[in-house]
Amino acid sequence: MITSLQNARVKQVVRLRQRRHRESERLFLIEGYREIQRAVEASVRIHALFTCEQFFSRSDTKDLVRQVAADVDATVEAVSSAVFAKISVRNGSDGLLAVAPSPAWSLGDMTVPANGLFLVSTATEKPGNLGTILRSADAAGVDGVVVCSAGTDVLNPNVVRASLGTVFSIPVAQADPDSVRLWLKHHAIRIIAAAPDADRLYIEADMTRSCAILLGSEHTGLDIEWMASADDRVRLPSVGHADSINVAMAATVMLFEARRQRRLQRSD
Amino acid sequence: MITSLQNARVKQVVRLRQRRHRESERLFLIEGYREIQRAVEASVRIHALFTCEQFFSRSDTKDLVRQVAADVDATVEAVSSAVFAKISVRNGSDGLLAVAPSPAWSLGDMTVPANGLFLVSTATEKPGNLGTILRSADAAGVDGVVVCSAGTDVLNPNVVRASLGTVFSIPVAQADPDSVRLWLKHHAIRIIAAAPDADRLYIEADMTRSCAILLGSEHTGLDIEWMASADDRVRLPSVGHADSINVAMAATVMLFEARRQRRLQRSD
Repeated sequence: MITSLQNARVKQVVRLRQRRHRESERLFLIEGYREIQRAVEASVRIHALFTCEQFFSRSDTKDLVRQVAADVDATVEAVSSAVFAKISVRNGSDGLLAVAPSPAWSLGDMTVPANGLFLVSTATEKPGNLGTILRSADAAGVDGVVVCSAGTDVLNPNVVRASLGTVFSIPVAQADPDSVRLWLKHHAIRIIAAAPDADRLYIEADMTRSCAILLGSEHTGLDIEWMASADDRVRLPSVGHADSINVAMAATVMLFEARRQRRLQRSD
Repeated sequence: MITSLQNARVKQVVRLRQRRHRESERLFLIEGYREIQRAVEASVRIHALFTCEQFFSRSDTKDLVRQVAADVDATVEAVSSAVFAKISVRNGSDGLLAVAPSPAWSLGDMTVPANGLFLVSTATEKPGNLGTILRSADAAGVDGVVVCSAGTDVLNPNVVRASLGTVFSIPVAQADPDSVRLWLKHHAIRIIAAAPDADRLYIEADMTRSCAILLGSEHTGLDIEWMASADDRVRLPSVGHADSINVAMAATVMLFEARRQRRLQRSD
């Protein structure tokens, strides 16, 4: 059992909270039962699993640990509660933290069906918001989520957590804004920008054909280049306080409107 | 300046985190600039405002402190950073915490317009979810939110916070389930229950006339009595993972669908 806070592997895990270390080591963290379970289902090749039995919160946690050890061939390392408290990113964690190689997640690998529905997060700043957006995208059955590298890294541990692991179950790509714009144009995907000061309401946009819903940053919205590349600019009704709806809620409402316009196909 | 952690007023504030103390003392806490600002706008009669300048995060914080002192006739008490850390409920707070008398918020005071749109939270457990539901309700322009006393107390500090203070800007009532059912019946408000296993989809429900959207608890959904009293049971499409959509997201989607069906009237 690892008990030293100075252990080299413990230090590595702590470093992986920072984007630059995730990018240079090409590794990221997955914390929590449900998140790790979804990663395993999505065939993420977990390298190492750190466990702390004291924090196990489910009766089937050991089954998942066994499955990770067997199927994925990961190293399982028990750690003391002090070590787990140090490596754990979130409160109320359930005693499981995995290290896995960062998926490539390139635009080229994204399948583009006819009349696909995509979401593009151009500059979401708060990991919690990006995670919630991924959950909504999963719930609404999008064909893919594209995250621009200008915003929060999709492999931020708090994004993985807030997404409840849905980041592993929906097609995701991360790329720079210019590449994303080229990709959208190449595939003739209409860009529908969510902009609070747009004239048209979101329900007036035709979302039945191939389209991508474009989200800006929480503070500054969409930048000039993105705004210029939009085919349609729409807003939510503003009956309440200006700041009462946030970017994740706006994404949820627009994605379900797209699903409604598409008569909720895809199994319902 | 209050510097003692043993100060009687400091202890009182800490006690008010617990529902039973809020109910016996008929006081509650409001933390944060935006939340206190909305409370002042809504004429909440703040009794006391605790301030800690070190944590002020906005240039206009002192203006709000002055306004509270002048308009609302509240006692303003500066506290040390150690005391503020003790009384503050949340991390990253901005140096302001108010104590105010609990609003009565009774069903009898709720205005019921023709074709009103209401939301009933029967047993929401997580304060963060209830707060988000209140934000969505504000954004979607509901005529009122009814919170059943079986669930989380709407004056829980984390509800006030997660609502960003919208709890003060929309009509809210808190009552026991039987009283809520009588009130709905008396006003002939159709009850549309959100139930994951319903046959009909939410877009098939007529939400153009007087109706209330009914939400259950995160874990057990709606109880038998509520389910029996529903006029309509509807679900969201389930294209993603079963747990990817939570009660607050479901509320957001259904409220905006109601607003869409009503052709987004109320100023848009």
